[in-house]
Amino acid sequence: MSIQMIDQEKLANEYMGVRSFTERLVQPLNMEDFIIQSMEDASPPKWHLAHTTWFFERFLLKEFLTDYNGFDDHFDYLFNSYYETAGPFHPRIERGLITRPSVEEVFAYRKHVDKYIKELIMSDSMGEMGDEIGSLLEIGLNHEQQHQELLLTDIKYNLSRNPFLPAYQRNECNASEPSTGPVSFIEMEGGLVEIGNNGKSFCFDNEKPVHKVWLDSYRLAKRPVTNDEFCAFIEDGGYKKPQYWLSDGWSTVQKNQWEAPLYWFKREEEWYTYTLAGEQQLNPNDPVCHVSFYEADAFARWSGKRLPTEEEWENACTLQTIEGNLADSGKFHPQAAQHTNEKLFLQAFGDVWEWTKSPYVSYPGNKPYEGTLGEYNAKFMCNQMVLRGGSCATPASHIRATYRNFFQPEKRWQFSGFRLAEDIHQ
Amino acid sequence: MSIQMIDQEKLANEYMGVRSFTERLVQPLNMEDFIIQSMEDASPPKWHLAHTTWFFERFLLKEFLTDYNGFDDHFDYLFNSYYETAGPFHPRIERGLITRPSVEEVFAYRKHVDKYIKELIMSDSMGEMGDEIGSLLEIGLNHEQQHQELLLTDIKYNLSRNPFLPAYQRNECNASEPSTGPVSFIEMEGGLVEIGNNGKSFCFDNEKPVHKVWLDSYRLAKRPVTNDEFCAFIEDGGYKKPQYWLSDGWSTVQKNQWEAPLYWFKREEEWYTYTLAGEQQLNPNDPVCHVSFYEADAFARWSGKRLPTEEEWENACTLQTIEGNLADSGKFHPQAAQHTNEKLFLQAFGDVWEWTKSPYVSYPGNKPYEGTLGEYNAKFMCNQMVLRGGSCATPASHIRATYRNFFQPEKRWQFSGFRLAEDIHQ
Amino acid sequence: MSIQMIDQEKLANEYMGVRSFTERLVQPLNMEDFIIQSMEDASPPKWHLAHTTWFFERFLLKEFLTDYNGFDDHFDYLFNSYYETAGPFHPRIERGLITRPSVEEVFAYRKHVDKYIKELIMSDSMGEMGDEIGSLLEIGLNHEQQHQELLLTDIKYNLSRNPFLPAYQRNECNASEPSTGPVSFIEMEGGLVEIGNNGKSFCFDNEKPVHKVWLDSYRLAKRPVTNDEFCAFIEDGGYKKPQYWLSDGWSTVQKNQWEAPLYWFKREEEWYTYTLAGEQQLNPNDPVCHVSFYEADAFARWSGKRLPTEEEWENACTLQTIEGNLADSGKFHPQAAQHTNEKLFLQAFGDVWEWTKSPYVSYPGNKPYEGTLGEYNAKFMCNQMVLRGGSCATPASHIRATYRNFFQPEKRWQFSGFRLAEDIHQ
Amino acid sequence: MSIQMIDQEKLANEYMGVRSFTERLVQPLNMEDFIIQSMEDASPPKWHLAHTTWFFERFLLKEFLTDYNGFDDHFDYLFNSYYETAGPFHPRIERGLITRPSVEEVFAYRKHVDKYIKELIMSDSMGEMGDEIGSLLEIGLNHEQQHQELLLTDIKYNLSRNPFLPAYQRNECNASEPSTGPVSFIEMEGGLVEIGNNGKSFCFDNEKPVHKVWLDSYRLAKRPVTNDEFCAFIEDGGYKKPQYWLSDGWSTVQKNQWEAPLYWFKREEEWYTYTLAGEQQLNPNDPVCHVSFYEADAFARWSGKRLPTEEEWENACTLQTIEGNLADSGKFHPQAAQHTNEKLFLQAFGDVWEWTKSPYVSYPGNKPYEGTLGEYNAKFMCNQMVLRGGSCATPASHIRATYRNFFQPEKRWQFSGFRLAEDIHQ
Ligand SMILES: [Fe+3]
Ligand SMILES: [Fe+3]
Ligand SMILES: [Fe+3]
Ligand SMILES: [Fe+3]
Repeated sequence: MSIQMIDQEKLANEYMGVRSFTERLVQPLNMEDFIIQSMEDASPPKWHLAHTTWFFERFLLKEFLTDYNGFDDHFDYLFNSYYETAGPFHPRIERGLITRPSVEEVFAYRKHVDKYIKELIMSDSMGEMGDEIGSLLEIGLNHEQQHQELLLTDIKYNLSRNPFLPAYQRNECNASEPSTGPVSFIEMEGGLVEIGNNGKSFCFDNEKPVHKVWLDSYRLAKRPVTNDEFCAFIEDGGYKKPQYWLSDGWSTVQKNQWEAPLYWFKREEEWYTYTLAGEQQLNPNDPVCHVSFYEADAFARWSGKRLPTEEEWENACTLQTIEGNLADSGKFHPQAAQHTNEKLFLQAFGDVWEWTKSPYVSYPGNKPYEGTLGEYNAKFMCNQMVLRGGSCATPASHIRATYRNFFQPEKRWQFSGFRLAEDIHQ
Repeated sequence: MSIQMIDQEKLANEYMGVRSFTERLVQPLNMEDFIIQSMEDASPPKWHLAHTTWFFERFLLKEFLTDYNGFDDHFDYLFNSYYETAGPFHPRIERGLITRPSVEEVFAYRKHVDKYIKELIMSDSMGEMGDEIGSLLEIGLNHEQQHQELLLTDIKYNLSRNPFLPAYQRNECNASEPSTGPVSFIEMEGGLVEIGNNGKSFCFDNEKPVHKVWLDSYRLAKRPVTNDEFCAFIEDGGYKKPQYWLSDGWSTVQKNQWEAPLYWFKREEEWYTYTLAGEQQLNPNDPVCHVSFYEADAFARWSGKRLPTEEEWENACTLQTIEGNLADSGKFHPQAAQHTNEKLFLQAFGDVWEWTKSPYVSYPGNKPYEGTLGEYNAKFMCNQMVLRGGSCATPASHIRATYRNFFQPEKRWQFSGFRLAEDIHQ
Repeated sequence: MSIQMIDQEKLANEYMGVRSFTERLVQPLNMEDFIIQSMEDASPPKWHLAHTTWFFERFLLKEFLTDYNGFDDHFDYLFNSYYETAGPFHPRIERGLITRPSVEEVFAYRKHVDKYIKELIMSDSMGEMGDEIGSLLEIGLNHEQQHQELLLTDIKYNLSRNPFLPAYQRNECNASEPSTGPVSFIEMEGGLVEIGNNGKSFCFDNEKPVHKVWLDSYRLAKRPVTNDEFCAFIEDGGYKKPQYWLSDGWSTVQKNQWEAPLYWFKREEEWYTYTLAGEQQLNPNDPVCHVSFYEADAFARWSGKRLPTEEEWENACTLQTIEGNLADSGKFHPQAAQHTNEKLFLQAFGDVWEWTKSPYVSYPGNKPYEGTLGEYNAKFMCNQMVLRGGSCATPASHIRATYRNFFQPEKRWQFSGFRLAEDIHQ
Repeated sequence: MSIQMIDQEKLANEYMGVRSFTERLVQPLNMEDFIIQSMEDASPPKWHLAHTTWFFERFLLKEFLTDYNGFDDHFDYLFNSYYETAGPFHPRIERGLITRPSVEEVFAYRKHVDKYIKELIMSDSMGEMGDEIGSLLEIGLNHEQQHQELLLTDIKYNLSRNPFLPAYQRNECNASEPSTGPVSFIEMEGGLVEIGNNGKSFCFDNEKPVHKVWLDSYRLAKRPVTNDEFCAFIEDGGYKKPQYWLSDGWSTVQKNQWEAPLYWFKREEEWYTYTLAGEQQLNPNDPVCHVSFYEADAFARWSGKRLPTEEEWENACTLQTIEGNLADSGKFHPQAAQHTNEKLFLQAFGDVWEWTKSPYVSYPGNKPYEGTLGEYNAKFMCNQMVLRGGSCATPASHIRATYRNFFQPEKRWQFSGFRLAEDIHQ
């Protein structure tokens, strides 16, 4: 989401647009579904609804709206996620133990904050402090969009722990596209390139500044790896051969007894997968999804290729139009690529986040946000890997070529896949 | 609950009486409160509602009602608690991850099973197989009463994990009774006594058979230990001095950093406790509650006394009238004893379960139930201690002098206190 | 060990006899074998050598020998096992991290303490305070004998963790005895019996006082269960059928994936076992050994019998001569029973400790030792089960009919087996 | 260690030089010290002695020496560290449970392998396959040098777990150097630079190839951070303020209750540290040592600077002479920097390894070793951070400017410190 000029009316509409999309996402849920946290990573939907609201209340209303009274004194404790400098907060692992406030009260909280945010947007403060407020609003809305994706991935994980695999929504099963044939690689010329976001439209602090990076020439796959290709890895004993795996990856495979991506299961010799529309037979041409960095990396080694760096990815996809199977489609499941003879990267945006081989670190010369929001991104720059390009659960207005997503290398509950790269040997 | 003769109408009424009491207990809950499991021991209320119903469906309807169809095929898996011989079941620790079936569906399940149970009770089968059905119904109803107590203790624990300590119900705070003064001990003459239940009215398999036990003469406290007395132990450094503790108890204290009974907390130098009516200041004359066997045993050693054996308890209280602060009062919190000069045991029934020094083992010559119900009690006869006398959460019709409750020695979330005993030295 | 009269010379000899047997037991070890602790239960041999010495230094020399100086200031911390009231001590789980003092220094420590103990025994103090000193010496020697058994079981466990199964000593493999045929049961008449030790010769505090117990008539197996019989349980799927197991036992089986007693392994369809003489093929007629209480109890349930109570065991074996395959034989492995037509219990003493169905609790009217030694036995009276009769690693002068050994129900590294019992139904 | 030309005699001498240095390092140990493993990271000295030997046996003797018979069949299992493709190996965490082979046998193993390696070096094979053998020998010797450092750090950690802190060797305490005053920063001009090793003399696979990297201009501290400076961080509450820490770092601090670097402890308000010469008072001017990446990073944030990248470090120190307080000095403890007015980096080599802000990943175009040795470095390229420059435990002939050491960000038992850097803002 990017806000180009401070047109108050338009801003209020954008605000309400993002906020109501969140509420549309939880429409299919039972009251009971709002409450549970089935692993530390997967927060209860109720918590997401309240936390994103708290973000606006805490960083906007309490800072800029004179005489604003907090909706409830307990919420600063309950719905602060991890901002140490904003005060003490409820342990992440106990989010699923909180039955009060009720779901209804959380919806009332949203209504309350929405009312005052609109008041703030329309107020005269937007004259004097419009830039600061506008920029915090942008952060708040992008923050909410990140939680929209998390809502979907957390709901999916939560429901998947029910042995009878209830569906979140029933939509038509995606018909299998014909295979696009073996993947081709597009050659990219190296050199001294510029990476990062110039900040003319919205971006997070971790995408800045624009900086020079030397890249050797390389080849990048036209499309992500498919289920079919990943099955070949499995059938070749990929999960049983330590030589393909990083040492930490191999320990993870052993400890968790992984034999396939998350949500895959076999019934009568056929692979099935759990989707937000319930279980379905695995579609061979869909991009493989719900794999960890370790699995992506092992597959790459098995196939004699490698993962791209985040700079290679950005350099290759920067001119690509931002379109694809994103959250706005409402499918919430990756789709098979459509064949094309054009020399362009398919599914660069949407379908699956793409693991890169780049650890998540700060760009040279980077400055985190000032104050409490400095904790937003910077403190996670360790033990995580960068993913690029958005997924079928990412709002279209939220993604861009410079966008850096990041997760620990063993995480699989996001819509995460990957695309191969290779060196050009002189 | 005991069923003396098979009067079908009366039986149906008793059935409905027990069943509706369960539903009354969950009346004060929000929909959200039904779902969570805040520790392995504390099951979600929804699960209790369904599991007790499954018990009737599985052991009565599916066995005796011709052409009965199960309400839902998944329920055998989801709501079997631990009966290995009845088929596979959902892991106990994951009960809080199940949002479907909804609470509403579980209430429909109850209605459905109630309808058919009543049909079964009124049917002709009650002629031929009345004894067997009647006896299983009795077990089912007593089972449901056990879960009524668990509902209360689990709800209490679940709500207590919310940092803002919501109340389950708002009832008038119990006014403090005047202290009964220092506890007195009543002398009981020893000899060869009979312990156990003759089975003339309902009892569980673990209470049988009546068997001879030799008891030396002993003294038993007139009333349980009070908060005030327990505070003296705390103030004397009881939780910091290993010499009062069993080795396993001391490890437990260290590991969990216990400094007081469960639910106690200090605010401005005063002790408070969480109750089902919310937090309240500690009433010094109430029986101490929510202590583990380890704490009871350490207190006893500190005070130069000991806990009674279960046989001493039963021998002393067997002639006591079954009345007291039981679940029927709706207070759900122990109350101070009322002074009396009579030579009788106060609060033998109700208020708090009383830890004994007896490990839970089978009585000589005991036979567990036949078949799957053999798993009801017998397989827990290891690493648990016997408690006697019922609590403020035990239905009055459920308790008797021979009743054996049992928990692991470190458990504290039940309404558990204790009464002291001592040897008579010749 | 029992000391009848204070004959100083004889006492000094007894002392040296026990002490030198300990040193004989560690003769076959490499220096390296003295150091390691392969699980929390299995202490390093060096630690046993030092701890038993510390016991004499701490409770005798420092109390009764004027001007005695401790051998090393650090040893009170390092070699106190668990006596909280004797001061802080090194965590049990870290005993295997202590390389200094060296083994040589520990032998010097033993020599030093031996010298002064002999001095104390021969001194005039033995006149005035002979009773107290003599009784502490007896405790110290019996304590050392307990550690002699632990030395053997801990050495066995430590060496067994080496994948190449080194032998502690090479002794001739026991030739298989002909089977004694199916086990027979001897009927014991019930009634009011006396249990416990009258203290005329040495016993531990936990064996006292003599007290009355009512026993119903019962039958007790003539000999312990054999490997052959236990194999039948395994082959019948005993480790896979929850119906035979206590709930805690079943969890233990699942968690540890037990499929046979400790030290058993299969090679080309044949059962082998690790012994202190290295691996050997399983001898079908030997008593089954290295089983937990859970396995003993499950076998009993599978076979339609039960384990005896400790009182039944004591009542039956009290008149049996104390002889058998005890540590003095140097075999350190149970042997097959020799057939006899006499109506007596075979292998009551030696071969394998016999699990009973009795939890370890204090006898009625029992008084623990005064002072720090009160921690010797009493604080373990929770979550443990009683074993009777001694094993092939128990010194003959250490065992008696009233002797109560105790371990947690899941422990298997002791030489533990069991004997069946059954009710007599009128 | 680098081998320039194949002079057989010289090669044999170099081999023996490295091998005998290992043996010199374990000279001060008791037999008992060789056995223990006090945490998963810290292997027993005996294991290091055997594993480095196995490396030569496995990758040289068994490959190139005709008719060579392994010294012991079990050693492939016991002393393979982590080479999955070389066969199964003993779990790392159980290295401290292996008392056989004895230390003596391991020394015999070393002698045996040394004899045959010398035979191989002097043999005619060195004609035909000299390059391959020579290059494997170089790897083997550098491998042994890495384990020389690990021997020292593991011995230090093992001994430190003894509550009485025994010394490894008694050497004169380093006299405190006068402080060099506040640290100064040297400006380095940026641009397109070359990083990595051209392979003309020995380097590991992970240092190759030489590749272009763009660096912005930066400043690098003349010397590492000192104890004195680190104390200021502690006194300012550095370990209590989450704002200075990465999120994972803060969790680590909380979980382990870190309040100072490893081996530091306070006595009567003074800081002491454990060294290989026993405990000593903290020398304020020594480089801070035994800090994790998290602590280095938190200190940098607190001080308003940052850590350098590995490329900045290499670019700055590449022309520095390789001299300093390295293992050859035998001090095994970092020393205070000596003041100088010259514009050069003090202590670039030796004293302490310097954490960089660079995650350990492969260089662009990098190729791991072929075959099993491909597991040497490449599989650890995840979740680890690069350290540069060697320490007081690194052999001088082992270090160079391009050398990349790597450890997980929470590890502290290596001699690890850090040097600050900062951006130059245009
Ligand atoms: Fe957030
Ligand atoms: Fe139940
Ligand atoms: Fe001991
Ligand atoms: Fe190595």
